[in-house]
Amino acid sequence: MDLDAVKRSLEPASGGETLSRARFFETFVLYGLSIDLIEHGHVICSMKVPPRLLNSSGLLHGGLMVALVDVVGSAVFYSAGLPTSGVSLEISISYVDAAYINDEIEFDAKILKTGKTVIVSTVEIRKKKTGKIVAQARHAKYAVASSKL
Amino acid sequence: MDLDAVKRSLEPASGGETLSRARFFETFVLYGLSIDLIEHGHVICSMKVPPRLLNSSGLLHGGLMVALVDVVGSAVFYSAGLPTSGVSLEISISYVDAAYINDEIEFDAKILKTGKTVIVSTVEIRKKKTGKIVAQARHAKYAVASSKL
Amino acid sequence: MDLDAVKRSLEPASGGETLSRARFFETFVLYGLSIDLIEHGHVICSMKVPPRLLNSSGLLHGGLMVALVDVVGSAVFYSAGLPTSGVSLEISISYVDAAYINDEIEFDAKILKTGKTVIVSTVEIRKKKTGKIVAQARHAKYAVASSKL
Amino acid sequence: MDLDAVKRSLEPASGGETLSRARFFETFVLYGLSIDLIEHGHVICSMKVPPRLLNSSGLLHGGLMVALVDVVGSAVFYSAGLPTSGVSLEISISYVDAAYINDEIEFDAKILKTGKTVIVSTVEIRKKKTGKIVAQARHAKYAVASSKL
Repeated sequence: MDLDAVKRSLEPASGGETLSRARFFETFVLYGLSIDLIEHGHVICSMKVPPRLLNSSGLLHGGLMVALVDVVGSAVFYSAGLPTSGVSLEISISYVDAAYINDEIEFDAKILKTGKTVIVSTVEIRKKKTGKIVAQARHAKYAVASSKL
Repeated sequence: MDLDAVKRSLEPASGGETLSRARFFETFVLYGLSIDLIEHGHVICSMKVPPRLLNSSGLLHGGLMVALVDVVGSAVFYSAGLPTSGVSLEISISYVDAAYINDEIEFDAKILKTGKTVIVSTVEIRKKKTGKIVAQARHAKYAVASSKL
Repeated sequence: MDLDAVKRSLEPASGGETLSRARFFETFVLYGLSIDLIEHGHVICSMKVPPRLLNSSGLLHGGLMVALVDVVGSAVFYSAGLPTSGVSLEISISYVDAAYINDEIEFDAKILKTGKTVIVSTVEIRKKKTGKIVAQARHAKYAVASSKL
Repeated sequence: MDLDAVKRSLEPASGGETLSRARFFETFVLYGLSIDLIEHGHVICSMKVPPRLLNSSGLLHGGLMVALVDVVGSAVFYSAGLPTSGVSLEISISYVDAAYINDEIEFDAKILKTGKTVIVSTVEIRKKKTGKIVAQARHAKYAVASSKL
């Protein structure tokens, strides 16, 4: 497992890096996310819902959750030794419960499939305290890192 | 149609509003989005892909696209006179082609279903110049605006 | 739990019943399915892949798997005491591996969400011998049994 | 376009063919389906909802609709000259309205994407008379016909 690759993909860009172009959105999204577990084919991250990621109803933004599913559900492929986290093909998510400001939520990503061409991860979003599910997602990716799908 | 409700849901918070808590993420996402068409059950918005929304490969971030599907696919319900844009139940998206910096892309949202309890919109993301599809999404929502799903 | 309701929903119609109109398709699909486990919010069924359910490549038919996800993923709501198995809103499935004739496969259905209006189940299709995942699905339903969505 | 390949994939096996193993399920599903249009990247089929395909509530079976999405949404790739209809990766469907016995419904399949490795079709299920949408689906497939995904 390339532990550094997993970590790099989950960490906001550091100060020294120029943020003007690269990973600004991911940095915005990832800021405050901590890595709780990295093992082969399994990554858990968590976050205390910050004010900046709420929607207009004061709940954790549903679109934002998908952005995090994208990032955490991609990192898990590095944890299984894949040299790439792939190019997104499909994401689907079911929203089950609302998450509120200051809720500790975790993103539990597992690999569902590692084929030669298509790889799939699942991400379950839960409240850390109660284990209650907030959302469940699947993320299919094209294994070869390329913009040519 | 409550034209103001449609517009309000698509516009980043203005300067006078306190951004610390409310709609900071949406403002971040929506900034630069222009409204091209609002008619009954149909909304088109467009955006020139800005540097801040790229992923680490230099392409429009896939998670970000879902955040925009969420917002534009919700606004379309206001355009049909619904008093609410609902609470998200399910989002699914197929990524078809990559979008690059400065590409003009449009988000074409239509209503697929307006039931008493469940409402569904579709959002097609296209390159404005060529009409080439970048992604296609469906967004199911619970019609009653409530955090109790 | 209404054990009879769970069982009834998973059993092909018996000989005495007129099959001309009611449940002919389900009977065709369910024939040969056995119930391995029924507990609160959890149902496992299994089946030896029969010749009649293969596709033209000689593999278990993907559309047929969804028909079984529909049936088993609905029965699980009865196991949690719900008076209805609901009306389908959304199904999504990821195919992970092929299943061949005579493979013993199991359909493991759990409840992801029981709301007042929307209920969601997950169904994992696995090879019984190896535990290898064949497909994973989510099934969202409208809780009130009615043709008026 | 290989017109014969499109047609063959949509027709139930004829009498001369041994049905014991090959395409029995598809034949069961396809029987009564007529081909209304075949053009490059676009196929429309229709069917009068027969008693054998109803669910226990007397409506067109939701799982069955997916089986037809699978078949019609695969045939459309032949219409674009692809030498294969691929191997299923993902299917997602939103159910919008119920279809009743004797309703004339059509399955309108279009190609969303033809990549070298991943191909995607959309299938809209409508009532022929009114154009009212019954369901909308997307179907992603792996382009190389192989059981090794």
